[in-house]
Amino acid sequence: MEKGIGLVNTKYYNFAMPPDEMILESGKRLGPATIAYETYGELNESRSNAVMVLHALSGDAHAAGFPKEDKKPGWWNDMIGPGKAFDTEKYFIICSNVIGGCKGSTGPSSLNEKTGKPYGLDFPIITISDMVNAQKYLLDHLGIDKLLCVVGGSMGGMQVLQWVASYPKRILSAIPIATALKHSPQQIALNEVGRQAVMSDPDWRGGDYYGRSQPERGLALARMIGHITYMSDESMENKFSRKLKNGGYNFSFKPEFEVEGYLHYRGDSFVKRFDANSYLYITKALDYFDLSPIDRFLPADSKIDTRFLVIAFKSDWLYPSYQSREIVRMLKTRRLDVTYCEINSNYGHDAFLLEFPEETRLISHFLTRVYDYAKNK
Amino acid sequence: MEKGIGLVNTKYYNFAMPPDEMILESGKRLGPATIAYETYGELNESRSNAVMVLHALSGDAHAAGFPKEDKKPGWWNDMIGPGKAFDTEKYFIICSNVIGGCKGSTGPSSLNEKTGKPYGLDFPIITISDMVNAQKYLLDHLGIDKLLCVVGGSMGGMQVLQWVASYPKRILSAIPIATALKHSPQQIALNEVGRQAVMSDPDWRGGDYYGRSQPERGLALARMIGHITYMSDESMENKFSRKLKNGGYNFSFKPEFEVEGYLHYRGDSFVKRFDANSYLYITKALDYFDLSPIDRFLPADSKIDTRFLVIAFKSDWLYPSYQSREIVRMLKTRRLDVTYCEINSNYGHDAFLLEFPEETRLISHFLTRVYDYAKNK
Repeated sequence: MEKGIGLVNTKYYNFAMPPDEMILESGKRLGPATIAYETYGELNESRSNAVMVLHALSGDAHAAGFPKEDKKPGWWNDMIGPGKAFDTEKYFIICSNVIGGCKGSTGPSSLNEKTGKPYGLDFPIITISDMVNAQKYLLDHLGIDKLLCVVGGSMGGMQVLQWVASYPKRILSAIPIATALKHSPQQIALNEVGRQAVMSDPDWRGGDYYGRSQPERGLALARMIGHITYMSDESMENKFSRKLKNGGYNFSFKPEFEVEGYLHYRGDSFVKRFDANSYLYITKALDYFDLSPIDRFLPADSKIDTRFLVIAFKSDWLYPSYQSREIVRMLKTRRLDVTYCEINSNYGHDAFLLEFPEETRLISHFLTRVYDYAKNK
Repeated sequence: MEKGIGLVNTKYYNFAMPPDEMILESGKRLGPATIAYETYGELNESRSNAVMVLHALSGDAHAAGFPKEDKKPGWWNDMIGPGKAFDTEKYFIICSNVIGGCKGSTGPSSLNEKTGKPYGLDFPIITISDMVNAQKYLLDHLGIDKLLCVVGGSMGGMQVLQWVASYPKRILSAIPIATALKHSPQQIALNEVGRQAVMSDPDWRGGDYYGRSQPERGLALARMIGHITYMSDESMENKFSRKLKNGGYNFSFKPEFEVEGYLHYRGDSFVKRFDANSYLYITKALDYFDLSPIDRFLPADSKIDTRFLVIAFKSDWLYPSYQSREIVRMLKTRRLDVTYCEINSNYGHDAFLLEFPEETRLISHFLTRVYDYAKNK
């Protein structure tokens, strides 16, 4: 059996108790709030080996190991564990669920203490910066001043960049993967179509569907669009080509190509594990993200001593590699220490969840270098 | 004022009268049927100057000129007219609406004579080959044996390829633009999501919505997805960037980025001019299209004397240029006369409706050469 980290538990930290609510980027207040998180490995005495792993749109705090109640490994289990890229024998790994989400952290499906009902659309709009501020509450609670590394792909990568922008002195190294400094109009457009799919479903009821069935068809449709963008033209060709489920044409509108069946399956399973309103809030946070003005990302007067490893994937058309090169260009403008690698994968955007050997090779080397540098400093 | 072809009329040809119905690829029968068409220029005495222009998904028979009732020029007005690429002083241009459509040719919104009601989902599934067979009825009716040229972009390009496959002896030259020999799984997936958007709308009512409101939200959503795929990442950036309609963030789920407003506008205007069931039927015809087996496209024993001009656009990611090169490769395998050009446009798939100067330059030269060759033969 694989050497892994075994059984894990999700923990919960409550923060932002009134009257000390969290002030959001919109100016609205949020509190009390909860952040769900998991940790793997041990924090060392000098509290200098902590790595924060940040998840993408539909991810959660369960990045590695196996929870008691089911046998599903964490979403980055191949990257986190003894001897893996994020070696739990050396590092203390933290992964938390974003606020606005639906996997244990406060979001639109959480109970609004003011009304005694789930928030629904009364939940305030949150941004990537708000997500990072919630993570900072957790970090303070854990007594960790500096992170050896922040790492994440896609929306996780945006949080990585936002950590650097918001708290540069707390970040020794950063690994943004398959991500961007800002959402482009194409990325915004794709998200808006997903949101409209949800909001057009009569079961959405203006966001007030809790206790009834959620807008399953709309959310499944949004996820189907998502899955097309996560794969590449080439990976779809390799996986499905024009294969038919029943060997011949139906001459009807029932799904008959294997690729159609796959999308329906992915859509249907998503609605069982994800909240439709969280989908709206999180995609909106993505669309608002914009660190492209250099003074917002790397203010000229801030002393940044962070080392960067920027990773992109050749066939990723949702977060194309030119967006990663834009990050690199900006880091170089500020003369920061940055390594860039474009991995020659045909998996599309999904590659950051699939290309373990390449990612492991790059990250373990980078992280060892940062760890040794920090120890000897 | 521009020298154009002025006022035009759409004409209608009725064919496939029972018991001589058209036999469709599915084995089902269709008839009586109507094909809507327009013609521009004059057929010469030898009936050798006819060019058939074939439209894309949402196009119609009105390719050029101005109809009496409105001032909207045809969809390829910049390409067809006196002195233009398809010079109406030299050529006789025919454009017809596809069967399955909703612009005058028989489709799911037409009256089913057997029931006295619109067909709805009782309309038989049609294929690109069926569309071409309906056009052949029209050509026979017009007394034209050979076409100087068949030309079309996107789905129009598939009909071009199908004309060559079905009736090679009737085609002197062919210009497939921004098209493919087969729909890839990515292309099928995008269409399936559009169909699901329509069919998930409760107003769709299993296709039986005629006389009530059509499934507007679902069809608009499908069209929004379509428009994302018709543009390129770069053309969206140039047109919209991250510009906001009101200058600042709403912190709500109302459309606020200009790109969102544009998509909503395009979606909303589409539902006023297009039938939702036709959208289902036509996208299904696209997905069934597959001339990739060489013996289906260019049978070894068929004597083909057709000249080809294959055109693709660099930034087109819906019908990427590798699909056009695949057409070229197959034509060369059969030692046919083919010219290939990839136009360096950043408009994405929409380029075939926008890059008039480049297309004109390529096509008028090619067509003159074919015309002279045919005259001297």
